[in-house]
Amino acid sequence: MHAEIISIGDELISGKTINSNAAWMGRQLLLIGVPVLQVTTVGDDAAMIREALATAERRSEIILITGGLGPTHDDITRSALCQYFQCDLVLNPVVLEQIRERFRHRGLPLAKSNESQAMVPSAAQVIYNRQGTAPGYHFEQSGRHVYVLPGVPHEMQGMMNESILPEIRARQTEWFIESKTFCTNGIAESMLYEKIGNPAEVERWAKMAFLPAPSGVQVRLIAQGTSAAEARQKLEQAAARVLERAGRYIYADYECTLEQVVAELLTQRKATVATAESCTGGLIAHKLTSIAGSSAYFERGVVCYSNRAKTELLHVPTSLIERHGAVSEQVAMSMAENVRRIAGVDYGIATTGIAGPGGGSDDKPVGLVFIGVADKSGSQWERHIFSGERWLNKERFANSALNLLRKRIIGF
Amino acid sequence: MHAEIISIGDELISGKTINSNAAWMGRQLLLIGVPVLQVTTVGDDAAMIREALATAERRSEIILITGGLGPTHDDITRSALCQYFQCDLVLNPVVLEQIRERFRHRGLPLAKSNESQAMVPSAAQVIYNRQGTAPGYHFEQSGRHVYVLPGVPHEMQGMMNESILPEIRARQTEWFIESKTFCTNGIAESMLYEKIGNPAEVERWAKMAFLPAPSGVQVRLIAQGTSAAEARQKLEQAAARVLERAGRYIYADYECTLEQVVAELLTQRKATVATAESCTGGLIAHKLTSIAGSSAYFERGVVCYSNRAKTELLHVPTSLIERHGAVSEQVAMSMAENVRRIAGVDYGIATTGIAGPGGGSDDKPVGLVFIGVADKSGSQWERHIFSGERWLNKERFANSALNLLRKRIIGF
Repeated sequence: MHAEIISIGDELISGKTINSNAAWMGRQLLLIGVPVLQVTTVGDDAAMIREALATAERRSEIILITGGLGPTHDDITRSALCQYFQCDLVLNPVVLEQIRERFRHRGLPLAKSNESQAMVPSAAQVIYNRQGTAPGYHFEQSGRHVYVLPGVPHEMQGMMNESILPEIRARQTEWFIESKTFCTNGIAESMLYEKIGNPAEVERWAKMAFLPAPSGVQVRLIAQGTSAAEARQKLEQAAARVLERAGRYIYADYECTLEQVVAELLTQRKATVATAESCTGGLIAHKLTSIAGSSAYFERGVVCYSNRAKTELLHVPTSLIERHGAVSEQVAMSMAENVRRIAGVDYGIATTGIAGPGGGSDDKPVGLVFIGVADKSGSQWERHIFSGERWLNKERFANSALNLLRKRIIGF
Repeated sequence: MHAEIISIGDELISGKTINSNAAWMGRQLLLIGVPVLQVTTVGDDAAMIREALATAERRSEIILITGGLGPTHDDITRSALCQYFQCDLVLNPVVLEQIRERFRHRGLPLAKSNESQAMVPSAAQVIYNRQGTAPGYHFEQSGRHVYVLPGVPHEMQGMMNESILPEIRARQTEWFIESKTFCTNGIAESMLYEKIGNPAEVERWAKMAFLPAPSGVQVRLIAQGTSAAEARQKLEQAAARVLERAGRYIYADYECTLEQVVAELLTQRKATVATAESCTGGLIAHKLTSIAGSSAYFERGVVCYSNRAKTELLHVPTSLIERHGAVSEQVAMSMAENVRRIAGVDYGIATTGIAGPGGGSDDKPVGLVFIGVADKSGSQWERHIFSGERWLNKERFANSALNLLRKRIIGF
């Protein structure tokens, strides 16, 4: 059993609005074992809508249509559907009363254009909308189910959760589905792929996908079985294999960021941290303070872009910078140790490197970073080289630093 | 002349990744007068890819395909295209050398799976990728142009900007298109809409769209004419109207960020800046250092999350914090003045506020921020209240601060 999504709206194909509805629906459908085969996005154009629907009906049992049900002249989804299903618009008194009640409740006069939303295609069952004026429709034709919903996200989600997803789930009796996502850091997609080895050995149990993100590559596993227990068991087999081969690069077995993991570790241990950033320019501090409640573990951060700032704020000896250069493991460690001592916190974390595009040399190329971490028992450093644009290098530098901090906290 | 977009990837139809690439491409294509007719999103499935391509070729002259060009087994776009265009994979020595060079640069061994990315369809021209290992392809067949690009956003955008958009623009000879985007800060979308007044008066000359972004609302104007001069003249009429009505909120008449504008102003004036952040947690420093060459104007930043850090790093008097609270105009100004003096720079910029979700009170609610800016002739402050999630509040706080700095620099 498969589903397709047809998203309708000029604002979608012109790029004014990003199609987040389709992503939301895709996630919900996958979790009830009904994968989406295709998402088709068209403008407010009757011929394109009919063509998309005809094509989808040839392939899929479930078709979800969103958008173009508003009260204005450019919303033409309803009339396109009447043409397609060869039916008329008829007044639905229940919907009319609901629309009137909404306006009464808000103390507003009822606009003619809103009243016309009570006219519904005669071939469809109405899906009531408790959050807005546009009702949804359900067409059933030769085993195909076509659900039509407004494009306003919270209205669509309300109607999906209340009536459509339970209905589809009841109809999907083929499979039980279980899924897991591993987040990695510090390994490139191609290297991770080789570490895990022959994908067929994982895919005996579960479908495996690699999803690159600035924080690192994610590995997603989806297992299906004829019972919940079977799906769960298959997922565990696949997960065990990935863990065995690539465990040392995995920082979480659910979808999350490195700063979330670090925040949780620090909070659990009632530990505090301070940052000393050069090339990351405040990004590590920004990430650590993006978590609600971060004032419990984040004490301060300094961004010492100039050598003078490194000396004044962090007491890095001028002689150390002269001897090894600002981009060196010695300076990274000195920054981490000193920010920890000066701020009086448990952990100090520091970066110094070359984000680019300028400032590189043969010896110290663009993309090079030294990361230092310090705690009461000492300090350590890592050296990485990335090759990306400035923003991506900063992202990767910051995530490598958070990962080093994570490893230091758990004694990895 | 129309375009279609085919987005490929299991992560898109499963809703793991929101299809922001299609929106970006739709915007860029519209700006060169080539509207998108349909966006088709399919999984990593050869038959679905071929079907989507065959359908798109019947309707549109330009087809842009993204995704599924990675080095792993689930990336099958390339082989699906070879089947569709009935050609083989051949080794491209230039691409192979580029991939080798990338790995050499990072000091990493070359994975077999990456080496295989140098195998390209024999029927295609190669589009070089300067930001990653997957090259793009250009197929031309009976007047149809099929461009194939990796799904990694910055790689796709780089290749679009460098080669594909200029090529399509040269081929679009029906209309002359001129467009302009005004970036605003400090005004909500509905207020901006009312300020500009009757949209028909602008749309006599150019299509107008409002695009909300965390940095502020953008107003996009697109004019078309049968000559370049006509399109330009219509655009100027529309732009004059927008400028007249909403000019004081506009910080740029092209698509850019506030940090880009501030960076340019500082660089032109050979001026320097230091940041003192509380609630923005390093985000302003991160934004200011996201611009290449930022070491010329950014001297240092401090993130003083605790009151102790405010006193130790910025010499904010404890009595001032006790009298007015840490979230106050007095503390914001003291932070800005002191960071300027201590760092020995031309401008100091500071934030103190409540990003939420916790920490608010009736007096000082979540979303409240005080911003201070200081230069040699004195200091000033602004107070804003926003209502969003933590990340959005931080974004808006930081952008408001950058806008205040901008206004101070130009003497607004």
